[in-house]
Amino acid sequence: MNILLTNDDGIFAPGIAAAYKELVKLGDVTVVAPSDAMSGAGHSITVFEPLECEEVEVPGAFTGYSVSGSPADCVKLAIMEICDKKIDLVVSGINNGANVGINVYYSGTVGAAMEAAFYKIPAVALSACRKGDVDLTSAAKHAGSVLKKLLPPKHSGVVNINIPQLTPGNPKGVKVVPQSTFGFNEHYVKEKSHTGKTQYQLTGGNYLDKDSPADTIALSEGFVTVTALGFDMTDYKNMENLHQIKWD
Amino acid sequence: MNILLTNDDGIFAPGIAAAYKELVKLGDVTVVAPSDAMSGAGHSITVFEPLECEEVEVPGAFTGYSVSGSPADCVKLAIMEICDKKIDLVVSGINNGANVGINVYYSGTVGAAMEAAFYKIPAVALSACRKGDVDLTSAAKHAGSVLKKLLPPKHSGVVNINIPQLTPGNPKGVKVVPQSTFGFNEHYVKEKSHTGKTQYQLTGGNYLDKDSPADTIALSEGFVTVTALGFDMTDYKNMENLHQIKWD
Repeated sequence: MNILLTNDDGIFAPGIAAAYKELVKLGDVTVVAPSDAMSGAGHSITVFEPLECEEVEVPGAFTGYSVSGSPADCVKLAIMEICDKKIDLVVSGINNGANVGINVYYSGTVGAAMEAAFYKIPAVALSACRKGDVDLTSAAKHAGSVLKKLLPPKHSGVVNINIPQLTPGNPKGVKVVPQSTFGFNEHYVKEKSHTGKTQYQLTGGNYLDKDSPADTIALSEGFVTVTALGFDMTDYKNMENLHQIKWD
Repeated sequence: MNILLTNDDGIFAPGIAAAYKELVKLGDVTVVAPSDAMSGAGHSITVFEPLECEEVEVPGAFTGYSVSGSPADCVKLAIMEICDKKIDLVVSGINNGANVGINVYYSGTVGAAMEAAFYKIPAVALSACRKGDVDLTSAAKHAGSVLKKLLPPKHSGVVNINIPQLTPGNPKGVKVVPQSTFGFNEHYVKEKSHTGKTQYQLTGGNYLDKDSPADTIALSEGFVTVTALGFDMTDYKNMENLHQIKWD
């Protein structure tokens, strides 16, 4: 099995090294990841500038390809230019921070996996809850054992896997749950820069939903969450309303 | 009606000025847009750095707020910090380039509108086909007349409106069509930088689908396309497969 591994925390992040150690047990792994941390990159791509790509050694972990772009750029470039063999599975992560709820839109980790899905390659996004200390090695082990259940990879779209905070007793098990569409409790802190300009720093980020059968809730309860994500954003219910309008 | 206007081509782009001229006929318009062009920004947000915001005058057009971030950042900041009054409608665009098919994932224009939808504010993304010369003033007029049909704004999610190439006879009418999930025909051009590094420039971008009842096709045929987009990415069909797996 040929596995392409990427992430959004950058090629030198501990999470991708931890994921690599699990994935080499399952197949041949090629790493193509951003040269810099790209958290919040979402599904952005680089259109006006060329991407630079170079082979880099991450000591004690792997030799991979570093790309001057977003996580989705890495997947696009890997599929079209870097990988010689057919890719059977794309893994993105393991991210230092959960990617559940509407956060999946902002997530470079999920964006990279979705890019693979565009090319009809089965893709998995791996993320670990960041509350408290994060043991990404243990989180990657849990993610790896969940991932094994999806092999041989044949799903379409993205399977989004999140590992809960690894306190004693966690994970409590695995739950297949839909993506929450509730928002966050977040705000900006207003301050003055040293040049006198007004600056706003985003902060907060607790989820607003409390009791729905959603990824946000199950993760906070200590379960590993598994969610199938697709890329048809069409809202068919609202489409019915649009069809009622006399346009001409 | 209080309208928030943003875009992804930046506050000084001709498209946002053209959109502004149409929107002031409909209500009070506050402009909060990126200081720089952010094409391909998708739904990225700025998490690790503060945003800078300043009032700027765009000569002959409007006075608005310029933000050192992504289109989604602009909407978030406008809702939480800049706009005093309740926002009734968020408009993003008009973008110089179509946003149909899987391109909506890469689109900062749609990302900004989706951010508003997270806050339960009706949102509209406006884009114009870039093939040949683009007359954004005419495109904005067509978009404005379509937008009027959605007033007073009460839809959830995003209504994604695309204006076709304005050749004689176009637009042929308005079509309510789903988002195409087919990919593009695109590739990288490989070259060496002046420092000897390998660089890859993304190019191409024709859609691969030929005959489905999709936004991509209708737009290329000369119709204005109208598509309802939502933000529950859960793929319920694939969820059924995941529920069949024995996880523990």
